[in-house]
Amino acid sequence: MIGATTWVIADGYIPPRSTGPAPELTSHESACMLNAGDADAHVDLTVYFADRPPAGPYRLTVPARRAFHQRINDLTDPEPVPPGTDYCCVIVSDVPIVVQHTRLDSRQAANALMSTIAYTPR
Amino acid sequence: MIGATTWVIADGYIPPRSTGPAPELTSHESACMLNAGDADAHVDLTVYFADRPPAGPYRLTVPARRAFHQRINDLTDPEPVPPGTDYCCVIVSDVPIVVQHTRLDSRQAANALMSTIAYTPR
Amino acid sequence: MIGATTWVIADGYIPPRSTGPAPELTSHESACMLNAGDADAHVDLTVYFADRPPAGPYRLTVPARRAFHQRINDLTDPEPVPPGTDYCCVIVSDVPIVVQHTRLDSRQAANALMSTIAYTPR
Amino acid sequence: MIGATTWVIADGYIPPRSTGPAPELTSHESACMLNAGDADAHVDLTVYFADRPPAGPYRLTVPARRAFHQRINDLTDPEPVPPGTDYCCVIVSDVPIVVQHTRLDSRQAANALMSTIAYTPR
Repeated sequence: MIGATTWVIADGYIPPRSTGPAPELTSHESACMLNAGDADAHVDLTVYFADRPPAGPYRLTVPARRAFHQRINDLTDPEPVPPGTDYCCVIVSDVPIVVQHTRLDSRQAANALMSTIAYTPR
Repeated sequence: MIGATTWVIADGYIPPRSTGPAPELTSHESACMLNAGDADAHVDLTVYFADRPPAGPYRLTVPARRAFHQRINDLTDPEPVPPGTDYCCVIVSDVPIVVQHTRLDSRQAANALMSTIAYTPR
Repeated sequence: MIGATTWVIADGYIPPRSTGPAPELTSHESACMLNAGDADAHVDLTVYFADRPPAGPYRLTVPARRAFHQRINDLTDPEPVPPGTDYCCVIVSDVPIVVQHTRLDSRQAANALMSTIAYTPR
Repeated sequence: MIGATTWVIADGYIPPRSTGPAPELTSHESACMLNAGDADAHVDLTVYFADRPPAGPYRLTVPARRAFHQRINDLTDPEPVPPGTDYCCVIVSDVPIVVQHTRLDSRQAANALMSTIAYTPR
């Protein structure tokens, strides 16, 4: 089983405007997850803010042997993550997964990208 | 011997359009590998998707003491990796290597870049 | 408690010009921190330069269970970090935190982004 | 002493053209190093290529308690690193340092950036 069960994204921010065709070039952030194992992963996301208590958990299922790229913009339950707001995210899974964090920012005329493997305790 | 034998890219996505001269500025993703050791590395890539079983293995040889930057766009055997599709990638080598994941996105008028050292179990 | 108490950013550089509305698209760098624990984090930043002794410590408090994205541009005590200057940053906390380093560069007409989880000793 | 003595950059590539004022916006790659310790660091870079034996070592001194951002473009001894060429880089220091790898690509009208903490064995 490849990966770990706890992951952290520290620089969360959904740019509040976009340039270009939606949804492909809509400004967004994604938590990109791999479950390379043989059992489905039950994943809880908790979102931390600068000025209020955390939101969540947001509950996801990442099927066995599948990629699962979750746009943070698309989370709605228990509440949307507001654009233009600093946040952090803790991701806890019941089986090992791997998480990479990516932002696409299309506020200006050509999009910008950033990505990093998320933090996992060792 | 520097590196590790298992590596994971979690945010795989080949942008489906490009601006600028090919192949240099064609939108692409690369698995950039270093084999700093004295023996050739035999490397298997397995590609995971959101909605179907994994593809692969794609078999590569990274010569001893050489850099090897593999465009994911250029993989054809056993099948191409489709652009515009979310994927993840597991890379397994028989000797230690180092893997860095990079995307060049030239869908809009100025290209965007993102890069991260891939995940390796510790 | 998630995270670690020592973090390093090695590529510090605040781009000295900007395009687009301030402060949102002002060129900047951020040390994005998560304190997921139940006690406030007392954090000291020390900034290293190429040609003079280090500056700091800059003292911050990251509240318990909160996100805290600190623009390096906004540090003033004991002294501002000058734009257009290479620097590195060591971040030490009294409780575990997670740190991600991000730069937004809007010197040219469309902004660029880069981000990485900071280095932490294991 | 913070850091490690071996670091790897796997995706080396100096974009072969630039847009904007030199040297600030010249396309380049940097190995950004922090020596937070009290002794100077003697650092050897070895550059690996796809189709020929490695070049180097390139010898650098990173002073105690200083930042040192080395543009790969500026290395000349024993030979320049050619632009438009895939490479990898191994960095070995006699005392612990931290290394972050960054590329600025200004081939098109607005620059792109990418950055990652380099790989270090644990």
